[in-house]
Amino acid sequence: MICSLNRSIKTRLYRSLCFSRSFHSKLRDTSKFVTLKPVSKLRSISSPDFISSPNSKLQSLIWHRPLQNVFITKKPWADNTRQAMVDFITHLHDSYPEINVLLQPDVAEEIAQDFVKNPQSNPGEPHVLYTGEIEDIVDKVDLLVTLGGDGTILRAVSLFASMQVPPVLAFSLGTLGFLLPFNFKQHKEVFEQVLSSRAKCLHRTRLECHVIRRGSKENCSKSVAHHAMNDIFLHRGNSPHLTNLDIFIDGEYLTRTTADGVTLATPTGSTAYSLSAGGSIVSPLVPAILLTPICPRSLSFRPLILPHSSHIKIKIGSKPLQGPDNKIVKLSIDGVPLEDLNVGDEIHVVNEIGTIYVNGSQLPSTKDSEVVKRREERIKNAGIYCIAKTENDWTRGINELLGFNSSFRFTSRKD
Amino acid sequence: MICSLNRSIKTRLYRSLCFSRSFHSKLRDTSKFVTLKPVSKLRSISSPDFISSPNSKLQSLIWHRPLQNVFITKKPWADNTRQAMVDFITHLHDSYPEINVLLQPDVAEEIAQDFVKNPQSNPGEPHVLYTGEIEDIVDKVDLLVTLGGDGTILRAVSLFASMQVPPVLAFSLGTLGFLLPFNFKQHKEVFEQVLSSRAKCLHRTRLECHVIRRGSKENCSKSVAHHAMNDIFLHRGNSPHLTNLDIFIDGEYLTRTTADGVTLATPTGSTAYSLSAGGSIVSPLVPAILLTPICPRSLSFRPLILPHSSHIKIKIGSKPLQGPDNKIVKLSIDGVPLEDLNVGDEIHVVNEIGTIYVNGSQLPSTKDSEVVKRREERIKNAGIYCIAKTENDWTRGINELLGFNSSFRFTSRKD
Amino acid sequence: MICSLNRSIKTRLYRSLCFSRSFHSKLRDTSKFVTLKPVSKLRSISSPDFISSPNSKLQSLIWHRPLQNVFITKKPWADNTRQAMVDFITHLHDSYPEINVLLQPDVAEEIAQDFVKNPQSNPGEPHVLYTGEIEDIVDKVDLLVTLGGDGTILRAVSLFASMQVPPVLAFSLGTLGFLLPFNFKQHKEVFEQVLSSRAKCLHRTRLECHVIRRGSKENCSKSVAHHAMNDIFLHRGNSPHLTNLDIFIDGEYLTRTTADGVTLATPTGSTAYSLSAGGSIVSPLVPAILLTPICPRSLSFRPLILPHSSHIKIKIGSKPLQGPDNKIVKLSIDGVPLEDLNVGDEIHVVNEIGTIYVNGSQLPSTKDSEVVKRREERIKNAGIYCIAKTENDWTRGINELLGFNSSFRFTSRKD
Amino acid sequence: MICSLNRSIKTRLYRSLCFSRSFHSKLRDTSKFVTLKPVSKLRSISSPDFISSPNSKLQSLIWHRPLQNVFITKKPWADNTRQAMVDFITHLHDSYPEINVLLQPDVAEEIAQDFVKNPQSNPGEPHVLYTGEIEDIVDKVDLLVTLGGDGTILRAVSLFASMQVPPVLAFSLGTLGFLLPFNFKQHKEVFEQVLSSRAKCLHRTRLECHVIRRGSKENCSKSVAHHAMNDIFLHRGNSPHLTNLDIFIDGEYLTRTTADGVTLATPTGSTAYSLSAGGSIVSPLVPAILLTPICPRSLSFRPLILPHSSHIKIKIGSKPLQGPDNKIVKLSIDGVPLEDLNVGDEIHVVNEIGTIYVNGSQLPSTKDSEVVKRREERIKNAGIYCIAKTENDWTRGINELLGFNSSFRFTSRKD
Repeated sequence: MICSLNRSIKTRLYRSLCFSRSFHSKLRDTSKFVTLKPVSKLRSISSPDFISSPNSKLQSLIWHRPLQNVFITKKPWADNTRQAMVDFITHLHDSYPEINVLLQPDVAEEIAQDFVKNPQSNPGEPHVLYTGEIEDIVDKVDLLVTLGGDGTILRAVSLFASMQVPPVLAFSLGTLGFLLPFNFKQHKEVFEQVLSSRAKCLHRTRLECHVIRRGSKENCSKSVAHHAMNDIFLHRGNSPHLTNLDIFIDGEYLTRTTADGVTLATPTGSTAYSLSAGGSIVSPLVPAILLTPICPRSLSFRPLILPHSSHIKIKIGSKPLQGPDNKIVKLSIDGVPLEDLNVGDEIHVVNEIGTIYVNGSQLPSTKDSEVVKRREERIKNAGIYCIAKTENDWTRGINELLGFNSSFRFTSRKD
Repeated sequence: MICSLNRSIKTRLYRSLCFSRSFHSKLRDTSKFVTLKPVSKLRSISSPDFISSPNSKLQSLIWHRPLQNVFITKKPWADNTRQAMVDFITHLHDSYPEINVLLQPDVAEEIAQDFVKNPQSNPGEPHVLYTGEIEDIVDKVDLLVTLGGDGTILRAVSLFASMQVPPVLAFSLGTLGFLLPFNFKQHKEVFEQVLSSRAKCLHRTRLECHVIRRGSKENCSKSVAHHAMNDIFLHRGNSPHLTNLDIFIDGEYLTRTTADGVTLATPTGSTAYSLSAGGSIVSPLVPAILLTPICPRSLSFRPLILPHSSHIKIKIGSKPLQGPDNKIVKLSIDGVPLEDLNVGDEIHVVNEIGTIYVNGSQLPSTKDSEVVKRREERIKNAGIYCIAKTENDWTRGINELLGFNSSFRFTSRKD
Repeated sequence: MICSLNRSIKTRLYRSLCFSRSFHSKLRDTSKFVTLKPVSKLRSISSPDFISSPNSKLQSLIWHRPLQNVFITKKPWADNTRQAMVDFITHLHDSYPEINVLLQPDVAEEIAQDFVKNPQSNPGEPHVLYTGEIEDIVDKVDLLVTLGGDGTILRAVSLFASMQVPPVLAFSLGTLGFLLPFNFKQHKEVFEQVLSSRAKCLHRTRLECHVIRRGSKENCSKSVAHHAMNDIFLHRGNSPHLTNLDIFIDGEYLTRTTADGVTLATPTGSTAYSLSAGGSIVSPLVPAILLTPICPRSLSFRPLILPHSSHIKIKIGSKPLQGPDNKIVKLSIDGVPLEDLNVGDEIHVVNEIGTIYVNGSQLPSTKDSEVVKRREERIKNAGIYCIAKTENDWTRGINELLGFNSSFRFTSRKD
Repeated sequence: MICSLNRSIKTRLYRSLCFSRSFHSKLRDTSKFVTLKPVSKLRSISSPDFISSPNSKLQSLIWHRPLQNVFITKKPWADNTRQAMVDFITHLHDSYPEINVLLQPDVAEEIAQDFVKNPQSNPGEPHVLYTGEIEDIVDKVDLLVTLGGDGTILRAVSLFASMQVPPVLAFSLGTLGFLLPFNFKQHKEVFEQVLSSRAKCLHRTRLECHVIRRGSKENCSKSVAHHAMNDIFLHRGNSPHLTNLDIFIDGEYLTRTTADGVTLATPTGSTAYSLSAGGSIVSPLVPAILLTPICPRSLSFRPLILPHSSHIKIKIGSKPLQGPDNKIVKLSIDGVPLEDLNVGDEIHVVNEIGTIYVNGSQLPSTKDSEVVKRREERIKNAGIYCIAKTENDWTRGINELLGFNSSFRFTSRKD
């Protein structure tokens, strides 16, 4: 399993799990039930079309080439998701021999053990599981299936950071989630609907975050882009000093906030950290970016809802006469700590689909045709299509999950 | 029943329900089961002592002269409180012949009908019920019993507006209430505990509100005092114009608010309108007055918690070029509309126990010995002693009634 | 002047101000300086085009036929706007003889008096002012000019309730406004820019509100549509009882709120009443509808930001055993009181551009071709194009007008 | 100067600055202007009386034995406070030869250099400055003078952590502060008032925090007490995981919060971190403890105002399947990081004056006479008496410093 919290472990894992002798030797006793094959043998991605309709908030998912490569991820350290994965793979192999199952190497190994212990799951011939380095897997995935909660979805999607994310089919095992997964009990019907182009998707957008170090001449368009499905936040972390953050929108100075930090969220993330910090609840269908301060030293920093085309720059400000630890501000993407920032460093945040370049923003000029082309392609493919249950999953979600507008359990002031 | 919303009806009722022939003629058919007697025949109030202890947040209620006169009120128009009243009176008459039951005239008449229909409730001889004008009743009450919810308690207590409120024993019929009543099922045990000086009380304070009309020379100490157990609020009501309210604390100008209105609440009232307007939840044991704006036209009017000794003056401000309807501001006490205020009118709000008279406030100078004496007496008797269940009713109340800090029904950001 | 607060007066005014003898007799003494002509003589509306650009948040306003008919409105009862109107009309007549000035009848009469007293404003020949019934005026207006603050803009725009609103050029006389008017000092340059197709516009959307009475079979599409530039709100007004409002989104039940009321706001209105009630600040470029509760009896009714395609239905709920006044809920549009609603009545709110018709909503079926055509036309013309100063007026506005994120005037916790 | 952020440096400084040869050798060149003497030569503390009056919110400060020992602290690294200290010492030595000036060793050394450079400040004979280890200084101080802002006051007061704090006379150098210092320009008049028993004090309370480690049998009464003038807070700091904190009040379970953290504040601290986290503004005269969550994962954790007699226990909760870093929660007192806490550890917070011991709390039983005596003494001396300017400093403070209820800079909705 890849714990997104610990990227060095992740890298180590991939390195070690190449198809060497040692790898096969570990799995020798599972070979009767499982055959591991490299993902490189699979055909490349086949993306479906997403068709809008005037009477629906959702898009119909239509496969032009048949769905073939299904990448399955699961919540780690949980027995129930492990069992669900065994059941799901068994179902796919039993009912859809043309479907290929892709797993991350460590998950493949873990699940192989389960097949050994779980004779009913085993067909006449060994289960074929495709695996490989994550960079290779992501090039092949037609459909992403997650077994777990919101965290599992966030982590799985983050594996496709700089690429188009395949449609996401999320199952939960009992626990609910704000990304609104299906109950795993329905996995057979729902998979059949997806396969046969009878499913509908909710389109969610992602934010893109670029770090520009102080004094760097780097252009945002060439820097590494981090992608957030929920939110990007800056926070003082362990520092006893509040952060001083200068916020610019579309090149225009907005404000300096002295605060614990600030969060930039997608509508999807409006029910995550932004909510805790006092932000409004925003439907995922509203094209917007939420700017919500975290414990600001002001009575009047009301949360802002900005156009999704906004280019938001936040620069770490200094304060005279403070010690060196003051300089460190923590950057987190979807709750995962990333880089430490220092005075003078900047983050630039835009929606994945890009922005309007006014007032000499550092974002790419439209003259670099290579960049323009890449960006246009990105816009076409941007965001995440999540298989949805009904038109109004969101309305139900805020009621059932958040306890939105719970009434008091007694009568009103005048009984 | 006295509906506090309609004081003219109330007055009319009392007037009509004197012990004239017409009154008896109405009740002729109940006389076999009920005998109505005038409250004037009863001995005067006997107040208990309230003893503090270093290890308790509550006061022990100790009767020196035996408890004798029990005034029972109920929620109107509700069959279950009507039945509960029959049961409670029957129990008192059966088990405690020395206890006198006092009722408001209309309730007496209503309940008399019930005794007719309810033969089991009837003893060998008719039930004696004491009634009379409310001004006469309140002089006799040793214990106030309410059957209903918070509204019933508020209305019953408001009958003792300018006097000491007797200890309050509140029962609910199923619905919960933030004033934390006992369940009516426990009425026998709880009454026995109260009678035998084994009950404990939570002391709640009241606010006192004086209206000083524009240009009036009236002194607050001589004006009519309205008492609030929950809150006093000013609101624009139907007016399309926001109110302009100038707020002074202890004679010092605090701020002008342009808003729907403003509420001044006791800690008890912190879970009523103040809560809806964004105020904090305040333990009834904190001696404080809450100043909470209602939809203020400002980003920075954070609710204030003021000392309970504060003298708060609010003056209705004007705005040039607005029509005549702008002038009307609605005043409500415990949710009941009172007088309309116009530009230049003021309300003065203090805790029932009085205030510190700094900066030439209009409140009584300490030289008027009559006023001083009255005030000192008031301080001794101020507030409302509510029979309590446990030391921590309040903690349970905010959890059970308000759904305080409900957790989301799914796992945290990282599942 | 038309006071939107008093529609009966408005109607009466129009009726009386027809071009009868009595009308001319009143103005006889102004005839040397002013000639009133009926608007019916003018050519019909000529709408400009609004051209988007990939590098701008604003639209360029391009006249294909020359701008000719300018309708000027002003804040009533204010000497400075009256003088500004005289100055502006004089400037137009002096510099642009081809431009026609349109005024409401009462304003025409008022201003005619001013020309009499103000000889410098008078040209060799009398000023020609076009006037008539408001229904006739609105058919002729190429450009709407307002002199005053936000309220003046709201009222002027409301005259075009069921029609396309012409581009709005707003001037303030000193006071600032959140609709971001130009300072009147710039009126010459700014008008020249507008005339010569060198101005840019911010596109703001309006909400559309339909009232469906209890038991009515009426279809929303045929009911009267009220238009809101800022907000639509329901409020208990003078009632001592909280409202019980059942809220549905796209035909799906969302929640029942027990509250003072609820407001539905455009992003433009996010800085009006919604802000006072705790809502977020939303950029006018975000296509969304804000649902903000007003003093809800709940700890967990966080404000919602809904898609602009939402169909929001609010039904007045009842509560057993409450008096008759409980039934009345006040409806206001842009702060102006409209109709009283009773239990069972509904309001339906959609963006002016329409909605997605899911779940059998009452909004018009797409089969009625007349309705469809009208709606399509409406979508093309929907919203309000406001002449803008710069790309970032909004950012400046929230800083300068709202005092957004004011820092404390002392150093942080660790000095 | 002692930076409270770095206690190890503090200790090292004291150790090294003993009155050894090396110390004198450093100061050899200042000896003409400054003589350093050990504080041990001074008489012990002489506390004034604080007299209440029925017409004042403040206490009169009355010296029975003359004020003699003045301990002066200043904001570090700031030239203006350094100059102010030179001026203040010069003034004291010139005008009040009987007053002894006490300084921390490093400050003494720093200021001695200033006297060398500043010949006008020098009297005929050298300035005598008393210094020594902080433990010895705090035993001698009659009056504490601070030069700087709120942070300087907090740090100076924290030096008296486990002892009675002497009256505090705070001066600011330009910057304002919420602890409401005098402007340094007034230092001569104000000092004279204090000396001659003509000053008035505002009494502020402190919180006391005990850490009880998991499994420890330690009794709170014997554990180290940390004192907070503003607030005590628990926070996740750098951890990507939210804290799980179980909160108990007076031995009763209140709630579990999943949050960034939680803050417990005095009314004085209501304008510090609690304010940023959404808490109300509480007058320092209200005897209360504020419990304000920091970014809670709940819609319904409204801030609480608890009685000042409350005993609040917070226990670090665990969550299954989270990594080891989840266990660490940061504890800060008045913004200064203290100890890290792990799962199972508890903090116990009470007002300095003690609490009511209900429900078997771990706080000291009243049987241990030693503890009782110590506690009684503490109650008598508890809190901090701050020399005040006027009765209504607080009202002015929230207006001038916080920008409380700033009105919008334009007219209301209806202009």
